[in-house]
Amino acid sequence: MATAVAPKGLEGIVATSSSICWIDGDAGVLSYRGIDIHELAQHSTFEETAYLLWFGRLPNLAELAAFTKELAAARTLDPKVVDFLRSVPTTGSPMEILRTAVSLLSLYDADEKDNSHEANVRKAYRLTSQIAMIVATFDRIRKGKSVVEADPSLSHAANFLWMLNGEKPSETAAHTFDIALILHADHELNASTFAARVIAATLADIHSAITGAIGALKGPLHGGANEATMRLLYAIDKAGADPAEYVRQMFADKKKISGFGHRVYHTEDPRATHLRRMSEELSRTAGNMKWFEMSRKIELFVKEQKKLNANVDFYSASTYTLLGIDIDLFTPIFAVSRIAGWTAHVIEQHDDNRLIRPRAEYVGPAYPSPYTPIAER
Amino acid sequence: MATAVAPKGLEGIVATSSSICWIDGDAGVLSYRGIDIHELAQHSTFEETAYLLWFGRLPNLAELAAFTKELAAARTLDPKVVDFLRSVPTTGSPMEILRTAVSLLSLYDADEKDNSHEANVRKAYRLTSQIAMIVATFDRIRKGKSVVEADPSLSHAANFLWMLNGEKPSETAAHTFDIALILHADHELNASTFAARVIAATLADIHSAITGAIGALKGPLHGGANEATMRLLYAIDKAGADPAEYVRQMFADKKKISGFGHRVYHTEDPRATHLRRMSEELSRTAGNMKWFEMSRKIELFVKEQKKLNANVDFYSASTYTLLGIDIDLFTPIFAVSRIAGWTAHVIEQHDDNRLIRPRAEYVGPAYPSPYTPIAER
Repeated sequence: MATAVAPKGLEGIVATSSSICWIDGDAGVLSYRGIDIHELAQHSTFEETAYLLWFGRLPNLAELAAFTKELAAARTLDPKVVDFLRSVPTTGSPMEILRTAVSLLSLYDADEKDNSHEANVRKAYRLTSQIAMIVATFDRIRKGKSVVEADPSLSHAANFLWMLNGEKPSETAAHTFDIALILHADHELNASTFAARVIAATLADIHSAITGAIGALKGPLHGGANEATMRLLYAIDKAGADPAEYVRQMFADKKKISGFGHRVYHTEDPRATHLRRMSEELSRTAGNMKWFEMSRKIELFVKEQKKLNANVDFYSASTYTLLGIDIDLFTPIFAVSRIAGWTAHVIEQHDDNRLIRPRAEYVGPAYPSPYTPIAER
Repeated sequence: MATAVAPKGLEGIVATSSSICWIDGDAGVLSYRGIDIHELAQHSTFEETAYLLWFGRLPNLAELAAFTKELAAARTLDPKVVDFLRSVPTTGSPMEILRTAVSLLSLYDADEKDNSHEANVRKAYRLTSQIAMIVATFDRIRKGKSVVEADPSLSHAANFLWMLNGEKPSETAAHTFDIALILHADHELNASTFAARVIAATLADIHSAITGAIGALKGPLHGGANEATMRLLYAIDKAGADPAEYVRQMFADKKKISGFGHRVYHTEDPRATHLRRMSEELSRTAGNMKWFEMSRKIELFVKEQKKLNANVDFYSASTYTLLGIDIDLFTPIFAVSRIAGWTAHVIEQHDDNRLIRPRAEYVGPAYPSPYTPIAER
């Protein structure tokens, strides 16, 4: 059987065709269904972006209204799922809880056994609304606060902040978070999306695929970089150190810095442009420039020393902190956004499926090795 | 950025190197760590095979004794996990329950945050024992039967049958099931194992990877084929039809038949050889040749008509049925075995990791497509 050996990590290997997302890593272009991310960040909403990802084109007014209504109507959690969130240790990591709760959702989903395009779309609405609810609800429970009911009159972004904080977000906060959701909604075959497609390609259901994607996102090489960035900012602040000097020492100690460089982008990550701007704006509004200025100094130093660009994670750290979001929710809110892309990819995979089953290059003991009787070993 | 377009489903693409499993699809060879599956099926046990997969060589007497003891000692489930199994709808599919329960296990695992080789091995013992317990325990609960305590004096195979049926299995049953576990323990980069490695490659924890693998196994293109085979045997029996004539009509109706052909093997699946023999032996012992004879007629007809060989799933259907195992447990018991290989692959991935992140060929709307204002759409 003919085999071709791919570079480690499948780097540069085209694993599938897709009409969802196009990235030009050299030019710093990210686009959903052909539309540039800068256009979407400037003019669109998460709802419109999710519509675009699922249905392949921008909605008209009536379509967007219907979509928004259906997404808001899907803001329900089976009481058994809320019971589950109350039953787990409050010290559990929000990503473990989210992974388990999403797996649990399928038990209460009427379409669990139906992988048709239509059923997958119905489940995409529900999963998108439910993941946001699970993240907010578990955070309330672990903090001993009352669970906040969803408000169907709010946007996806504003409802999440409402359910998380128990107070209506400012327009600036809701808009900033909405843009963050747009920026994170899809990124072609990133590891979690690829995991979702590998799982879906066995014709497993969408809940199985999304559960696997959440597991992949949990890894520090994928979703965890902005958490590490924020921990770095806190450490520098606590030490009262100069950011550039602190990072210089990290490099001298052969430590890695999170939030820089990207497998795909060889120029500025187009999402970083917006997150830098939002971090700065939120800082001015809050009258607290500390995290932004510290971030900026690190960014310039790393660029000068290592020729590395800040990626999506670097300024999302300070942006989320300025929105009052806990550090261990950074990765869960990545899922609150990326669910739009994950579900689009699972739907696309199921619509034209082939099992994803590569080969391994065998580098173990020679075949056939003898089965030596145990007394002679 | 240079990219290479791989065939759909990554067919024939070498995605990673591995020293665990070597398959020669043309010659019909399957081997673990260089040792032929026929040797293992004839002489080994599941415990010894798991040791081989995890540690790269066969154990000596003392090592096997210590391994067996540690695996048996890991037969514990946190009471919260048993509570969970009691709380879910008894109509839930065992694979949904297993996927969710395994995700839940990480919340009660002391090593959850530790991805070191040593911690991964400790978790591999626990996951291997716990998956078997979850499958058996949920089946007891859904049938309204009392939960059976694990018996540390029994082998992995015998303990599973004991916990499932509440009576000690015959030597023949335990031995047959043990061989089935050996045969299914690993299969290189099958879809569930590949999903586990994609997830683990973000440096996500082993529970995330195994949860994703269970999701992938749930898909009918992967774990579900022997369920479909058994349903076919029941349908033929119910219709009182001639097996070959029934299948001839299926082909005339353009229906697919499960349990035949394989992405990797182009000759007889070496696992099928053993399952055919075991199916026949169990049938003779039981004095009930019906399922075996029906299977044999179908196998010969499909071979003659379509030049397709029976794969691992075809005779596992009748074998498991003769062992008294319900049809919807066929895929869960695949997991009871494959956990040995999944964990070996996750450990190998973490030991020498690189993020698995391929690219997609973009086939969507041209970039840049305009962002038309909504009023003009």
